[in-house]
Amino acid sequence: MTLLGTGAMGTALGRAWLAAGHPLTVWNRTPGRTAALTAEGAVAAGSAAEAVAANRLVVACLLDDASVGAALDSAELAGRDLVNLTTGTPADARERAAWAEKRGARFLDGGIMAVPPMIGAPGAFVLYSGDAELFEEHRAALAVPAATEYVGADPGLAALQDVALLSAMYGMFAGVTHAFALLRGTRVAPGDFAALLVPWLNAMAGTAEETAGRLSSGDYTTGVVSHLGMQVAGSGTLLRTAGEQGVSTELLTPFLDLMRERAAAGHATEDTTGLVDLLRTR
Amino acid sequence: MTLLGTGAMGTALGRAWLAAGHPLTVWNRTPGRTAALTAEGAVAAGSAAEAVAANRLVVACLLDDASVGAALDSAELAGRDLVNLTTGTPADARERAAWAEKRGARFLDGGIMAVPPMIGAPGAFVLYSGDAELFEEHRAALAVPAATEYVGADPGLAALQDVALLSAMYGMFAGVTHAFALLRGTRVAPGDFAALLVPWLNAMAGTAEETAGRLSSGDYTTGVVSHLGMQVAGSGTLLRTAGEQGVSTELLTPFLDLMRERAAAGHATEDTTGLVDLLRTR
Ligand SMILES: NC(=O)c1ccc[n+]([C@@H]2O[C@H](COP(=O)([O-])OP(=O)(O)OC[C@H]3O[C@@H](n4cnc5c(N)ncnc54)[C@H](OP(=O)(O)O)[C@@H]3O)[C@@H](O)[C@H]2O)c1
Ligand SMILES: NC(=O)c1ccc[n+]([C@@H]2O[C@H](COP(=O)([O-])OP(=O)(O)OC[C@H]3O[C@@H](n4cnc5c(N)ncnc54)[C@H](OP(=O)(O)O)[C@@H]3O)[C@@H](O)[C@H]2O)c1
Repeated sequence: MTLLGTGAMGTALGRAWLAAGHPLTVWNRTPGRTAALTAEGAVAAGSAAEAVAANRLVVACLLDDASVGAALDSAELAGRDLVNLTTGTPADARERAAWAEKRGARFLDGGIMAVPPMIGAPGAFVLYSGDAELFEEHRAALAVPAATEYVGADPGLAALQDVALLSAMYGMFAGVTHAFALLRGTRVAPGDFAALLVPWLNAMAGTAEETAGRLSSGDYTTGVVSHLGMQVAGSGTLLRTAGEQGVSTELLTPFLDLMRERAAAGHATEDTTGLVDLLRTR
Repeated sequence: MTLLGTGAMGTALGRAWLAAGHPLTVWNRTPGRTAALTAEGAVAAGSAAEAVAANRLVVACLLDDASVGAALDSAELAGRDLVNLTTGTPADARERAAWAEKRGARFLDGGIMAVPPMIGAPGAFVLYSGDAELFEEHRAALAVPAATEYVGADPGLAALQDVALLSAMYGMFAGVTHAFALLRGTRVAPGDFAALLVPWLNAMAGTAEETAGRLSSGDYTTGVVSHLGMQVAGSGTLLRTAGEQGVSTELLTPFLDLMRERAAAGHATEDTTGLVDLLRTR
């Protein structure tokens, strides 16, 4: 197989394939950066076009969608299976798929849910969407660096869910950042608090299943225990505590404001599910 | 023991104590609301003062700190052990502790990390801080409705960590809300996405241990894999995807802006730990 791009992530992927015995042709815009992989048995091609010509399965792991276009501009793609592990938006993936298919290639988009040190270790996974036959045919090779999760034929679906997972993660990081800021300058050791925080977040993450169920049914009120009305009333304690501890509320207020807006619009007996709809009507 | 307040939470607590065989005197401002507990064997007192006189251990679970003051205004607290499970700020708890001690009572503050249906079931816990002897003496009774977690003699520490956990949870909910909003109007079933999201959040919650370690050591750069610089560059994909899907970025931008600010201030090789310090310098 061929790997285009031997940056931090490309190198980690290439290492996993070489270690599993897959012959690998590599190319990188800056040639010196293929050295780690050629030392482990990869063959460096002189150009992206040459690298693409060498194998049917071509994996690209480049900076962004524009660099994929630039790298493959003069390559002959007819008959190739292009797997694009470069991060982009759903529209990027759909346009790149149409572009590849017009040039005679099958196309699979992938979103890597891992950092380079996790590649080849348990926990890492890649979301795939696009050509289902390509995926099935190369499934074993694709599964070497990370677990595979095929999410549909629409090539935009992997990027969509990749971005959705990352966005949720940043929300959680924002909450964790605010929480640790509250404890700065107190006698609470960050590690002691983390021992409470991690299981708490794990337990609360489970409520996403309930939110999903409510979004599917459209019923945002039956069986709700923590009403928005009650949560809005309780949010004053969160804001006053931030004030007492000298912590900016900038990471907290957007969500609390959204709860207040939804409750005030006649939805005080819902849980937070309805905020999903509010975000889409602006 | 005595329970002041038989709202949703007080009633759940009272039920757990009665089921475990603890004789219970109850009081509620609106007398009718004690009926569920008296039907199960509790004795209703005619006033808060009477209820306090009936037992040494007095648990208050009222709306807010002001209602604790109002309810106990004319009660004789000397020789009582007051356990306050009413949500408030750390300063509320410290002031209430001083107020109770001045009146001759020992004081323990508690923050309930559960909703009423979780009381008496595994997973629920209460953070306690304040008088350690009071806690040890009544530990068995306190452990009936929920697991106990004593976090220190400073009476403000339970409220502080209660609010910190809730704030972190709201951050996570904000991220989950944004993620589901991205998928609205697509063919991705919310339940299928939740099956990816929950384990992903659980895995990412673990990074709070790393953040805690960095906050303790003060070293925000050694061993960092995802540099702020790289994360800021990648955030464009998150914002463009929100644009493509018609989703407001209001829940996402405050954290991304903070990352950009920290990276621009010469900290591009840190991870997100340094944002904790930024939140405290405004
Ligand atoms: N690292 C992570 O934690 C991580 C996690 C998940 C997903 N990803 C995704 O994986 C992809 C690669 O990331 P990385 O960490 O390997 O980045 P990186 O270390 O910065 O490597 C970027 C790669 O893209 C190449 N490149 C940049 N512009 C190019 C152009 N115009 N034409 C041709 N090649 C170009 C670079 O070549 P030169 O060597 O010539 O500059 C290099 O091979 C990105 O889409 C990233 O979002 C990364
Ligand atoms: N429910 C939850 O999910 C949850 C979770 C964690 C912590 N908590 C905390 O538990 C506490 C009680 O919550 P809850 O859910 O039981 O609330 P609730 O159902 O609204 O009950 C509020 C209680 O406070 C009493 N009260 C209000 N103002 C009063 C005043 N001025 N003087 C005397 N009594 C007064 C009410 O008496 P009346 O019946 O006369 O109005 C009632 O007993 C709160 O601090 C809350 O933050 C609740």
